[in-house]
Amino acid sequence: MRAAPTQEDIRRQNLGALLRRVHVLGPVSRAQLTAGMGLNRSTIGALTTDLTEAGLVLEELPRGTAGRGRPSLVVRARSRRVYVLAFGVGVDRLVAARVGLGGVILDRREIERPGGHFGVDETVERLAGFAARLTESAEPEARCVGAAASLPAMVARDSGELRYGPNIGWGTVPFGARLSDAAGRPVAVGNDGALGALGEHTRGAAVGLDDVVYLHGDVGIGGGVIAGGRPLTGAEGFAAEVGHMVVNPDGRPCPCGSYGCWETEIGEEALLRGVGRAGTPGREAVHSAVDAAARGDKDAEEGLRQVGDWLGIGVANLVNLLNPRIVVFGGTLRTVYPATAAQVRSRINRTTLPTHREHLRLRTALLGDDAPLHGAAELAFAELFENPLDFTSP
Amino acid sequence: MRAAPTQEDIRRQNLGALLRRVHVLGPVSRAQLTAGMGLNRSTIGALTTDLTEAGLVLEELPRGTAGRGRPSLVVRARSRRVYVLAFGVGVDRLVAARVGLGGVILDRREIERPGGHFGVDETVERLAGFAARLTESAEPEARCVGAAASLPAMVARDSGELRYGPNIGWGTVPFGARLSDAAGRPVAVGNDGALGALGEHTRGAAVGLDDVVYLHGDVGIGGGVIAGGRPLTGAEGFAAEVGHMVVNPDGRPCPCGSYGCWETEIGEEALLRGVGRAGTPGREAVHSAVDAAARGDKDAEEGLRQVGDWLGIGVANLVNLLNPRIVVFGGTLRTVYPATAAQVRSRINRTTLPTHREHLRLRTALLGDDAPLHGAAELAFAELFENPLDFTSP
Repeated sequence: MRAAPTQEDIRRQNLGALLRRVHVLGPVSRAQLTAGMGLNRSTIGALTTDLTEAGLVLEELPRGTAGRGRPSLVVRARSRRVYVLAFGVGVDRLVAARVGLGGVILDRREIERPGGHFGVDETVERLAGFAARLTESAEPEARCVGAAASLPAMVARDSGELRYGPNIGWGTVPFGARLSDAAGRPVAVGNDGALGALGEHTRGAAVGLDDVVYLHGDVGIGGGVIAGGRPLTGAEGFAAEVGHMVVNPDGRPCPCGSYGCWETEIGEEALLRGVGRAGTPGREAVHSAVDAAARGDKDAEEGLRQVGDWLGIGVANLVNLLNPRIVVFGGTLRTVYPATAAQVRSRINRTTLPTHREHLRLRTALLGDDAPLHGAAELAFAELFENPLDFTSP
Repeated sequence: MRAAPTQEDIRRQNLGALLRRVHVLGPVSRAQLTAGMGLNRSTIGALTTDLTEAGLVLEELPRGTAGRGRPSLVVRARSRRVYVLAFGVGVDRLVAARVGLGGVILDRREIERPGGHFGVDETVERLAGFAARLTESAEPEARCVGAAASLPAMVARDSGELRYGPNIGWGTVPFGARLSDAAGRPVAVGNDGALGALGEHTRGAAVGLDDVVYLHGDVGIGGGVIAGGRPLTGAEGFAAEVGHMVVNPDGRPCPCGSYGCWETEIGEEALLRGVGRAGTPGREAVHSAVDAAARGDKDAEEGLRQVGDWLGIGVANLVNLLNPRIVVFGGTLRTVYPATAAQVRSRINRTTLPTHREHLRLRTALLGDDAPLHGAAELAFAELFENPLDFTSP
């Protein structure tokens, strides 16, 4: 039961909505904004003028319009002038990027440690170092309007505290506060599955679809859900722990303390054990197993067939429970899903309700391994869209 | 990317919000409305005057306030004057009620057919008959502002078409259109699990909680989810088909075509088979089995223990996936859950993530078997709250 908005609230909402529209859709004409936002021309003109004066957008004549009468000005995000820092923590990989308004990656740094984890201290230190270099490489007048990090762990919605990250060997850690201190600016934090969903929904495979399941394979299986156009967070921000859905009550023990969790059947360890390569962990080993199956290696084929079967059972459950329009496979599942698509489809056809699969799409992540990084950038930009003009860089 | 609201939109929204507040909270003073809605006194005064003139609310002096200065007027819904018709279709039970603004059941009719199904034609005919008698029994100047029906079947969000209802033996049926024709007025339709969730969220065990899982046991297991304060519908309105989550891939065939669906392990048939009473279906048989276990019948105890184990596994999955604040057990699960609470809790403690169970509540439905009926009433009232003054009874 919301409070009523004031005129000033409405203006701020409109400024945010317009700026976000330019950010998501790319350069867009005043005429398109007028049509798309349901506002009149003069209001759109006033809003874009305000955003231009604030240095957030540019207005320019569209290309190739000479001699066609008075063209509608095109509004474009000032990507090099207004940016965020986005961090991505994977089990064995750290990434940081400077992402300009409009979602363009302007600069990035990353480091891998195949087969090993980064500890909390080292992660904070390296990301803060990346942040400093990314900021240095920006244009002198550019301003940073936010920062956020994606983590393969549960993140409490209200405190931003990291609560459980078994696959990176971390326990409860005030990671956002630690990284904020080291980087010298507030850094929001989010779960990699949730942010992958946000990334793919904003500018990936799920653009324009309101009901999305995103699955993220790393060592474990993370997930994120968009329901009715909004992220599904749950009461504390821990929703979509898809990896800990029990699919096989007679299955193996999971580090979470339960048995037969989905990730004990389709996670990295299960896959590598299934194809007879349990000794060499890491995403490269997963890719190599998939390659081997494609080349006709019988053990790899059989192992992948099993993983595909369990992948299909879990996806089918999510489809029956959430009725998504699309399931997006991210992280290592970008490789695993195409190699097991026949098993997955077969299980879905047997196990989902006909109503639920009729319009269902299955796709790999369009943003590749960067889906959570793009999601982190969106999280970092969110505050700017709340109040574009009075926003002051923290 | 919403269009901007006009002044008239805002007024309409405020009228709807105020009316809905009175409907949900009961009689409430102008002072409380001022504080709760974030509007000033004169605006609240103008809005309540408009709603009073439209015959939707009454304003009166609070009781027992003589001599205490000028008291704030109390705003009360005109429950006998403004009502909806709510219909509830169970597998072997039909209910219809006249529900007044404020959620009070003013009159109800019902019929049971223990152990048997109602067909589509008979259901439509009987409910239309109930509707006529419920309307006749209303005060002469009362007006009906909506009607809606709860069904144990999947209901397409856009068309209102019933798509799949195996437990009532119905296939694809334009049930809303059929009942609307027979009743002589538009009747909205919704799934019983979804409407049970709405009912319990609005005026039952889940009031004030934004993240809710409602489970409805009849012959099968239906469900409804409130996520972030809003119903989770999925892309086509088919979300929360919890009964068809596969919990036991080696399990029994389900009428849906899959194997080991949750309802094959905890539905009526599974429960009665487990307690050695497969021959006598119906909700009375379920209650009687639970009674037998309470009296120490060993077969009944053992059967219920098994059901409790599977009930716990499924609830744990929903908790890990949706991170609800509360799980509400409705329909026959109101009896089954208390009788199996130890197994359910034990499974939840073993199978959910510690973060997810920390603040989790498990409760039986406060509205009893009427949770979906109350949800249907809320669905029927929804249009009035969209536009309280210009609303004309269809």
